[in-house]
Amino acid sequence: MKVKYNLLDKDKNSNGRYGTIETNYGTYETPMFMPVGTRASVKGLSVEELKYCNSGIILGNTYHLWLRPGEDIINRCGGLHKFMNWDGPILTDSGGFQVFSLAKSKDISEEGVVFKSHIDGKKLLLTPEKSIEIQNKLDSDIAMSFDECPPASATHEYLKNSVERTIRWAERGKKVHNNPRQSLFGIVQGGPYKDLRKYSATETVKLDFDGYSVGGVANDGESKEDMYKAIEYSTCYLPEDKVRYLMGVGDPIDIIEGVVRGIDIFDCVLPTRIARHGQAFTRNGKINFNNAKFKEDLSPVEEGCDCYTCKNYSKAYIRHLITVGESLGGRLLSIHNIRFLIKLTEELREAIKENKLLEYREEFISKYEKKGK
Amino acid sequence: MKVKYNLLDKDKNSNGRYGTIETNYGTYETPMFMPVGTRASVKGLSVEELKYCNSGIILGNTYHLWLRPGEDIINRCGGLHKFMNWDGPILTDSGGFQVFSLAKSKDISEEGVVFKSHIDGKKLLLTPEKSIEIQNKLDSDIAMSFDECPPASATHEYLKNSVERTIRWAERGKKVHNNPRQSLFGIVQGGPYKDLRKYSATETVKLDFDGYSVGGVANDGESKEDMYKAIEYSTCYLPEDKVRYLMGVGDPIDIIEGVVRGIDIFDCVLPTRIARHGQAFTRNGKINFNNAKFKEDLSPVEEGCDCYTCKNYSKAYIRHLITVGESLGGRLLSIHNIRFLIKLTEELREAIKENKLLEYREEFISKYEKKGK
Repeated sequence: MKVKYNLLDKDKNSNGRYGTIETNYGTYETPMFMPVGTRASVKGLSVEELKYCNSGIILGNTYHLWLRPGEDIINRCGGLHKFMNWDGPILTDSGGFQVFSLAKSKDISEEGVVFKSHIDGKKLLLTPEKSIEIQNKLDSDIAMSFDECPPASATHEYLKNSVERTIRWAERGKKVHNNPRQSLFGIVQGGPYKDLRKYSATETVKLDFDGYSVGGVANDGESKEDMYKAIEYSTCYLPEDKVRYLMGVGDPIDIIEGVVRGIDIFDCVLPTRIARHGQAFTRNGKINFNNAKFKEDLSPVEEGCDCYTCKNYSKAYIRHLITVGESLGGRLLSIHNIRFLIKLTEELREAIKENKLLEYREEFISKYEKKGK
Repeated sequence: MKVKYNLLDKDKNSNGRYGTIETNYGTYETPMFMPVGTRASVKGLSVEELKYCNSGIILGNTYHLWLRPGEDIINRCGGLHKFMNWDGPILTDSGGFQVFSLAKSKDISEEGVVFKSHIDGKKLLLTPEKSIEIQNKLDSDIAMSFDECPPASATHEYLKNSVERTIRWAERGKKVHNNPRQSLFGIVQGGPYKDLRKYSATETVKLDFDGYSVGGVANDGESKEDMYKAIEYSTCYLPEDKVRYLMGVGDPIDIIEGVVRGIDIFDCVLPTRIARHGQAFTRNGKINFNNAKFKEDLSPVEEGCDCYTCKNYSKAYIRHLITVGESLGGRLLSIHNIRFLIKLTEELREAIKENKLLEYREEFISKYEKKGK
């Protein structure tokens, strides 16, 4: 089936939306945070741990799975769900973001992108058609259109051409999409420019996708104001009855600001990446377990947190694991960080239903940014 | 309480013993395999996963915990059980083996061993008293006496002096042991020599420990025949009413040969170490997931295995995880390998009760060694 978004409630003082998304694997509430399973595994976590964090949709990376093990192998193994033993919904990205951020010596043309693999330097071509073909074979529940992801430094002129091409790419991808149980989303680009975002959104919506995402944010060097503007300039042109996904955003404050601006779904590697470096989200800001002050601290990562890690382990133990390099340390912090972001979206849902989203934002930010002061 | 061994059955055709060991954390059957939690974590596994493998006693390494985070920190955190959230029995080794295998520029004297830390090169002194003091503070259920672990190349003359000193060290350790809920084991050394093993065993038994272990086997360069002889020459001089622990042995065939010679308990890092390198135990020998033949193999690591990994994942998925370096791969294989060895000891118990230990050995070895032929 195609995903179906149900708008159930709106915050009276902002663009915050509460709703549900119906998928092949059940119905889930939004706003929602999606953990990222880059290479068919959310780094360090089992599927049971993901469920225990109350995960809904998870994300798989088309670029990585295309290179290794290859979409044909996953297809012959029964698709990505069966391959990785995940019986919940999966969204795959288009591969575009990785091609633009990881690959070497890119050559962008109307046809697609020629680039060298970051693994073995092999020359490869990714086109809108190829991206959809790979995602069809991976058999995710939601596929993304192939888009160009220009850097934050791109000029208005560059972005204008890029946005126009991305719309042509979206149309080409939609034409070859051929998996009746898979939804296809369009992507709004256009940098921080209102005219480009408007053009990108309205033209993409004309192509009639099953959902829309806001791309080209959270790039290196982009300011927060530009990011929030880009979101605003995109969501205001998107239909209310389709789900809206902000790609690659996982900072707690950015998630709140996205929800305030009408975003429903987020994904990011941040919670697992900072975990492997010994960092954890808390309501009072991020904490770093390399800090010696936690050496004998018997309290949990965060008092009152309902995650497996906080219910069973002390800061002292986690600091020890991080310090000596035991993988259990990163795993325990990944569980906490993913649960932290999912819990945040659960609270945002309640705040929207109670028309208290802006108060929630103010209170959260005032505590979170007190850190170190 | 001190551990209590109950001899419940003997194999009629060998020295194989079936029994139970009563500990502070319940009663467990032997023969038993103990997973190794080197630095207060069995590499990559949660305590729930260890329980699910049907683990009994687990092992902690005194040398590693002494250096990081330090026994005083663990003590102030409530002891090793509370620190690592393990509510089962723990055995700590003496630190001797690591000092002799990991540390640089060792200087052995009657007092103890002066060596340089493998972490920061700091000069340290480990003595029989210090080893026991650290283990008292770690608050494990079973502590080991500090012994010298000479290399396989040591001469009879060297070993004679070493064994005599190890007995004096055992006596010194016993004198300062001061933890009423902790048992203390003595260690039999003596290389492959019957006279030295006999001397070491009888003199150590005179000191009256709560259990005995056979050390100085499984060294680099030691032949299998020498290892099996060393076990035989040790167990025949040990009392029947005390538990017998063979240190550092985890090869499936060696476990069987140890049980045939009257050993009750084993430990080894082998199952988790080979897992991280992509290898798994099976009844038909070890298999290596770097092998491309598993690329699309949808069967489990081992048909009929009752472990979490085999019940949920395919060879194809595990090969993918191992190939790309996702930590979940090593974790899934560690679970399988630990369960494999624990299941092996469960079957050995049944074989002993049915007086079929030698048939079991023959059948197991004939399948296991067919590998690659």
